[in-house]
Amino acid sequence: MSAAPSWAASAAASAATSGLAVPAASGDAFGWKGVARDGAARAGVMRTAHGPVATPVFMPVGTAGTVKAMTADGVRSTGAAIVLGNTYHLMLRPGPERVQALGGLHRFMDWPGPILTDSGGFQVMSLGALRTLDADGVTFRSHLDGSKHRLTPERSIRIQHALDATITMAFDECTPYPATPEQVAASMRLSMRWAERSRQAFVARAGYAMFGIVQGGTDAGLRAESVAALRAIGFEGYAVGGLAVGEGQAEMLRVLDATVPLLPPDRPRYLMGVGTPDDLVASVARGVDMFDCVMPTRAGRTARAYTSRGVLNLRNARHAGDPGPVDAACGCTACRRHSRAYLHHLFRAGEMLGPMLLSEHNIRYYQDLMRGLREAIVRGDLEAHSAAVRAEWEAGKEGQGSALDPPGAAPLDRHT
Amino acid sequence: MSAAPSWAASAAASAATSGLAVPAASGDAFGWKGVARDGAARAGVMRTAHGPVATPVFMPVGTAGTVKAMTADGVRSTGAAIVLGNTYHLMLRPGPERVQALGGLHRFMDWPGPILTDSGGFQVMSLGALRTLDADGVTFRSHLDGSKHRLTPERSIRIQHALDATITMAFDECTPYPATPEQVAASMRLSMRWAERSRQAFVARAGYAMFGIVQGGTDAGLRAESVAALRAIGFEGYAVGGLAVGEGQAEMLRVLDATVPLLPPDRPRYLMGVGTPDDLVASVARGVDMFDCVMPTRAGRTARAYTSRGVLNLRNARHAGDPGPVDAACGCTACRRHSRAYLHHLFRAGEMLGPMLLSEHNIRYYQDLMRGLREAIVRGDLEAHSAAVRAEWEAGKEGQGSALDPPGAAPLDRHT
Repeated sequence: MSAAPSWAASAAASAATSGLAVPAASGDAFGWKGVARDGAARAGVMRTAHGPVATPVFMPVGTAGTVKAMTADGVRSTGAAIVLGNTYHLMLRPGPERVQALGGLHRFMDWPGPILTDSGGFQVMSLGALRTLDADGVTFRSHLDGSKHRLTPERSIRIQHALDATITMAFDECTPYPATPEQVAASMRLSMRWAERSRQAFVARAGYAMFGIVQGGTDAGLRAESVAALRAIGFEGYAVGGLAVGEGQAEMLRVLDATVPLLPPDRPRYLMGVGTPDDLVASVARGVDMFDCVMPTRAGRTARAYTSRGVLNLRNARHAGDPGPVDAACGCTACRRHSRAYLHHLFRAGEMLGPMLLSEHNIRYYQDLMRGLREAIVRGDLEAHSAAVRAEWEAGKEGQGSALDPPGAAPLDRHT
Repeated sequence: MSAAPSWAASAAASAATSGLAVPAASGDAFGWKGVARDGAARAGVMRTAHGPVATPVFMPVGTAGTVKAMTADGVRSTGAAIVLGNTYHLMLRPGPERVQALGGLHRFMDWPGPILTDSGGFQVMSLGALRTLDADGVTFRSHLDGSKHRLTPERSIRIQHALDATITMAFDECTPYPATPEQVAASMRLSMRWAERSRQAFVARAGYAMFGIVQGGTDAGLRAESVAALRAIGFEGYAVGGLAVGEGQAEMLRVLDATVPLLPPDRPRYLMGVGTPDDLVASVARGVDMFDCVMPTRAGRTARAYTSRGVLNLRNARHAGDPGPVDAACGCTACRRHSRAYLHHLFRAGEMLGPMLLSEHNIRYYQDLMRGLREAIVRGDLEAHSAAVRAEWEAGKEGQGSALDPPGAAPLDRHT
């Protein structure tokens, strides 16, 4: 990464003096402990009621109680330690009471490890004309059957409790982009009032956590105000929301540069809904610990493979006779057992095994990428490692011509 | 099963005196060896270039180089020892030359075990208006893109050789049903001429085999004529074709009763495209060794589960809150790890994991069913075992009311 601005160094120094110790939380076992730093980047371990998570970490998205096209064993085989569930989708189907009666989301989806649930705010806001916002919450119609529902901070938190989420997210409004400065400020302040109500509604249990969500659009001042409001409430972790919604990577990184150093250094930091492999490399360097994104699984369903040599579209005719693996550096089922030609054939023939194999591959690539970044932080050579990773993406492009898709070309939508 | 007709007993006696020994084939290692008999039913082991297969056996259908919605490891996990490929589908996409250049179908689909390929006859015939038949072969248009192709016995066998099929099927005309006696006779005799040409075109290799296919509709005399013609040519195994095309189970079993005893007792017998669990139980009792059918995988994709207690439709609302497994007697991923309620949710939500889990379950059920039949033959209590299996299907219906689907309600189409 390029040279960090001076405030990053001072933030790092401030974090270093704070010792990165496990927070002495009120009697519960949830906590994040740093094990190494490299610039602003951190390697650590998050302790939860459902097992530990090494950070930085990428969390596969299991919106409706399944990481799409993968068995739970398949997800585990990639090295993933924590997955996401979604309050909006699960409240509509099968319903939080049903999941609770069946023993919670962990048992339901065969994932005894940690689960983080999104609060539903992002999904409800993206319903557009189907929802109306008021100071107390949001009324909306289901995208499935048009039935009327309501989410408030209290209801979102109760649902996440019923699902038995290891990490509950505060209910917020994901500020639309673009928006006027006044809209951004009003939206952020509403989210901060909702964060307070979310925290009040949260039932603390040992090893469980709630994260607050920083809003404020691309305005550094509003972001700082949001961080201060959340820190005053106090959460086990802090998320940065409202990014990767169209502002572009440069703007997103600028917001991170202004926001991450303000977050408490002894709590995990989660950048929501991000992103491309390059986004992850850039954000880890800025001190982010946790990520989620539908990109690897969605790309896998549409024949796009993330690899150590860049992004491939396996529907492309140049793979039709290629006996080589998708990525020689990868240990997933597709790469150990099958040729690019076979994957190409499966996608051309519309066979379900194509999405199955490539979803596993992409999640594995993301896990391997994060493990590589973590190990580089521990070694203290993150900058050189990141440069080497990026150089290999570029070399892959040169070797394979312009048919290579640019990283990040996939549309981003956190619904599916 | 009900009392066998007298000719079945005499055929069994004749088979017993022949010793069920491995055939002394012309220098190759392919062979079938009986290990036990019970009435007309046989347990045995088929030896092939790609490993042994215990019979009776059910072969999952991997039409386009993949058993739909399953990884090769998943197929293996069910206990399956041999799978099918399809000449028609693979010749159109990705093409036999490409599969050959990539090391053959075994490597292509990660199935080092035995593979049997259908000859394409059945699929071409079912194209209807898209194909024209002449004495030499069939000209047809691809169902994919309308492109014109031709299959002859010689071309079908060459394609199966290029695919590296362990067991090559003779190219035949699957006689339409219903048809006049004259049509059935003419069709069968054409298939017998094509069987002779298929055999001529076959390149013998150690451990590889070619099977002839008995035709003749529901006419016992024509079936006998067909068997005699095939035995005069000589094959490593014999298939019964042209059944399960609409004639109903009673008529199918009547044809088996008239045909199976005429087949050489020292060669494997394969009933093509069959069938329901009940069809398998009834046909094993009549001396059939091998089966294939799309039913378990197709049913799995449409939420239908075959179980020891009958057939379930998991989309049915009565499963929505059911914490129990699909089948308590089953060791598949779905039954070990998930509730019926979860499967119900996955199908309602249109999640790919539903078809994935239930395809594995159904293939596992078929494998367990066949293993049970085989062990009963070895113990010598097939009739009692089969009666117990059927009684449990019936008991399942009684326990769960009329919402249970009757076995065999799924449409049968060997294309997909």
